[in-house]
Amino acid sequence: MLGQMMEAPLLISNTIDFAAKFHPDVEVVSRTVEGPIHRTSYGEIARRSRKLARAVQRLGVQSGTRVATIAWNTHRHLELYFGVSGMGSVLHTINPRLSSEQMDYVVHHAEDHVLFFDRSFLPLAARLMQASNPIKHFVLMGSEKDRASGDPGGLKYYDELVDEASSDYEWPQFDERTASSLCYTSGTTGDPKGVLYSHRSTILHSYCVTMADSLALSNRDVTLPVVPMFHVNAWGVPYAAAMVGSKLVFPGPGLDGPRLLDLVEQEGVTSLLGVPTVWMNLLNEARVRDVKLSSVEKVVIGGSAAPPSMIEGFELGHDVRVLHAWGMTETSPLGTVCRALRKHDEMSSEDRRKLQAKQGRPLFGVDLRIVDDQEQVLPHDGVAAGHLQIRGSWVASSYFKTESSHAHREGWFATGDIACIDPDGYVLLTDRSKDVIKSGGEWISSIGLEGAAMECPGVAQAAVIATPDEKWVERPLLVVVKESETQVDSEQILEFLRAKVPKFWVPERVEFVDALPLGATGKVLKRELREIFAS
Amino acid sequence: MLGQMMEAPLLISNTIDFAAKFHPDVEVVSRTVEGPIHRTSYGEIARRSRKLARAVQRLGVQSGTRVATIAWNTHRHLELYFGVSGMGSVLHTINPRLSSEQMDYVVHHAEDHVLFFDRSFLPLAARLMQASNPIKHFVLMGSEKDRASGDPGGLKYYDELVDEASSDYEWPQFDERTASSLCYTSGTTGDPKGVLYSHRSTILHSYCVTMADSLALSNRDVTLPVVPMFHVNAWGVPYAAAMVGSKLVFPGPGLDGPRLLDLVEQEGVTSLLGVPTVWMNLLNEARVRDVKLSSVEKVVIGGSAAPPSMIEGFELGHDVRVLHAWGMTETSPLGTVCRALRKHDEMSSEDRRKLQAKQGRPLFGVDLRIVDDQEQVLPHDGVAAGHLQIRGSWVASSYFKTESSHAHREGWFATGDIACIDPDGYVLLTDRSKDVIKSGGEWISSIGLEGAAMECPGVAQAAVIATPDEKWVERPLLVVVKESETQVDSEQILEFLRAKVPKFWVPERVEFVDALPLGATGKVLKRELREIFAS
Repeated sequence: MLGQMMEAPLLISNTIDFAAKFHPDVEVVSRTVEGPIHRTSYGEIARRSRKLARAVQRLGVQSGTRVATIAWNTHRHLELYFGVSGMGSVLHTINPRLSSEQMDYVVHHAEDHVLFFDRSFLPLAARLMQASNPIKHFVLMGSEKDRASGDPGGLKYYDELVDEASSDYEWPQFDERTASSLCYTSGTTGDPKGVLYSHRSTILHSYCVTMADSLALSNRDVTLPVVPMFHVNAWGVPYAAAMVGSKLVFPGPGLDGPRLLDLVEQEGVTSLLGVPTVWMNLLNEARVRDVKLSSVEKVVIGGSAAPPSMIEGFELGHDVRVLHAWGMTETSPLGTVCRALRKHDEMSSEDRRKLQAKQGRPLFGVDLRIVDDQEQVLPHDGVAAGHLQIRGSWVASSYFKTESSHAHREGWFATGDIACIDPDGYVLLTDRSKDVIKSGGEWISSIGLEGAAMECPGVAQAAVIATPDEKWVERPLLVVVKESETQVDSEQILEFLRAKVPKFWVPERVEFVDALPLGATGKVLKRELREIFAS
Repeated sequence: MLGQMMEAPLLISNTIDFAAKFHPDVEVVSRTVEGPIHRTSYGEIARRSRKLARAVQRLGVQSGTRVATIAWNTHRHLELYFGVSGMGSVLHTINPRLSSEQMDYVVHHAEDHVLFFDRSFLPLAARLMQASNPIKHFVLMGSEKDRASGDPGGLKYYDELVDEASSDYEWPQFDERTASSLCYTSGTTGDPKGVLYSHRSTILHSYCVTMADSLALSNRDVTLPVVPMFHVNAWGVPYAAAMVGSKLVFPGPGLDGPRLLDLVEQEGVTSLLGVPTVWMNLLNEARVRDVKLSSVEKVVIGGSAAPPSMIEGFELGHDVRVLHAWGMTETSPLGTVCRALRKHDEMSSEDRRKLQAKQGRPLFGVDLRIVDDQEQVLPHDGVAAGHLQIRGSWVASSYFKTESSHAHREGWFATGDIACIDPDGYVLLTDRSKDVIKSGGEWISSIGLEGAAMECPGVAQAAVIATPDEKWVERPLLVVVKESETQVDSEQILEFLRAKVPKFWVPERVEFVDALPLGATGKVLKRELREIFAS
């Protein structure tokens, strides 16, 4: 027997419709690629998203057609989020840092029909225009009035395309399982793999973003997503912000410390979201200017583990609470968020920051487990470490154009992370499966060792890799980037570590480098480090 | 093209499974009908819910079978919430305050197969046992060991039924639109009408309960739902609490001020939810004992409009924030929640409390509009008042065993409320359609007038009804219950009102009564008042 409740599909267009109706005047502020600050509102974004839907229809886009973007976080990209998905076509957000080869691959694999791109990425677009590929229309996200001498012929211009389109458009209603957006994850090996989100998964995930125990995105927030809109839909923030009416502040291409700090101060930002690297820049700039991030209330850090020193830097220096979160492209991305329980209120601040360095507790809608090498489920005792698996409403069931993958089995997705889970449900990642160091039969957590090393004065960044060892099979090697103008040496770091980690974790060697090799999403490429230090 | 995301149905059993896995040790505390405080945990509730599912199967309950309860808020009722809905049957929570005639009607209409009841309601059950009706099994929610001499033969006992059942049970997977629970709404006229909730509507509504902008139910909360579990599923709190791992405190039959206050103090309750009447008792008791509600952080008030004096009492006396919410049985119930926006931070406390007296802003998942008598949509200008209509994921599409109703039209449900909506989306209810007073062609808000009267010193409760008038067609009549030991008179109240409301609102007459007539859900029966004062 079915219930007798209204059965409207969960659609992305509902979020911007809701925003236009119940908080039309809430601002959306962007640092533009052109330079100046642009101010608009949800009411206007809603109106222009409808016009955009009409405009892409005129370019031959239909239900299911893939529409690509190579773009920063701006109001135009936001209109594409609502306009393209809202009309039933699929927004494919391309990471501009992909290699040429990877970019060619994803454009062909996705069969992109249109490419929208910011002027900063004109060279990438120009190269694609020359190559043989499925893209029929190249749209520069700017005005024809700003056409530059370097513009190749045959471009279309976003502003005119939207201005000329009719706003007389009603969002279509369709199956909520319809594909809404596509994001490729570029592993360190093999071709990029596409995650094809649905309207249903996006809306359920957006609810999760707004939960008090999760990111608690609220209409009281002024939210600045530094996490790119080409990276797991900016963690779902654009949809969730429209749902609750949070003022949005987009940094455009200005991801350096000075421009981020300007924007935070000028717009009264309360909530920041992004990967650890950008916060290093922001904290440094605040130190240089000797200012407090006085409007900021919370910083959500994900993408890779936040070092305890960063959590401390925000809390002690700026009275800002760090929310550590964990997820993946395949998980939309929210899997866990780290918030203290009431019983933790009595904790010492040192213990509390140790707790905050964990990835946190899962949110209703996803289910987690850890298994051993034989796929036997391990207990949540805070000690047993195993392969972390996840399933749930916003977890990919397979990759685009494939039916199965090695990582998907028996309804679970194998994350490739090693973790333990404590009795309160807190997940602590200890390693990536492929980065695990097994020394004398025992696992050494490269993440744990990196975190400890980064607490050592003078160490700016740290990465740990396994090196072969005759006696122990593997031993950890610590690779360090020094803070500028410090003179920390190998023995000082090792001495520091001896007081912090189990004896057998302490590496025999420390290597110093000027910079760590980073992949397209800002993560350290340990594979390259292993090649460099193989000898 | 469909997305490639996992497609698990949204089921109520997921909530208790999640609780058992990620916060098994969080407490569920109940004041029992037997008297003592009972302590259990989500882990144990999960285990016993599965046993309960097995037990009701043995009573012949199948998918879709209706299982009725007449019960207080306790751990046993919570097990019924998960066990009965989890196995695919339908939990029909009966309001014990229904008249015999109404109760016979709903039992027949629902075709209840089993009735679970608390010992307090043995007389009601005994009467139903004598009557001809579809109930095959009567289960007393207690232990056979406590069998009393007054127990009629043929009863089953909850504790033994559950204890004897196997816990070897896996929740079935089924269509998320499947009916999960049934709650009848008893209007002032006509037969009660059943709202048949689905698993999908319940889970989506539960997400809404946990949103930061909504009730923000969190694992940091110690939640005491005074709102009965037979009243719109206790506003969805039991499901949402399991989702986030909030400690639950159930008051059982102890709804008087002294026992509520004991429980709040002993269990460190942070969040209270209920209708205005119970809070009057709690505030009075706190005054008598001269204690502060020091653990309490928020009180959610719904069911009927919270008088400004109550909001003030909580805030000034106890530093407790009142969240005013609005909804109906037909809306699961959350429609709007009243929280201040950031721009309101600068408001005077008087203005802020005026804002808090509004019903609040809608939450994503429901859509609202106001229309005039010709069904023309009215603007959100904070001035135009019209018939409030609602639609959304947790709004009933029709009543049980009917296909249409006068209130459901063109995808909207007519709430029967008169409201205005301001540009920020805040809803202010000014009246029930049937209670509207139209005087000289102008509407007078009975709710507004009641709120103003209750601010007058010496006035404990106030109700306003329309009386016929030759010149103005209708005029308001104010009916007042005085606070004990005060001597306020008619002229003092009218003098007070003259300074508070538009001149033409001020009634010509005040009538004093010892108590207002209340319906089964604690609302004032204005129909009865109109009959009494018809002359």
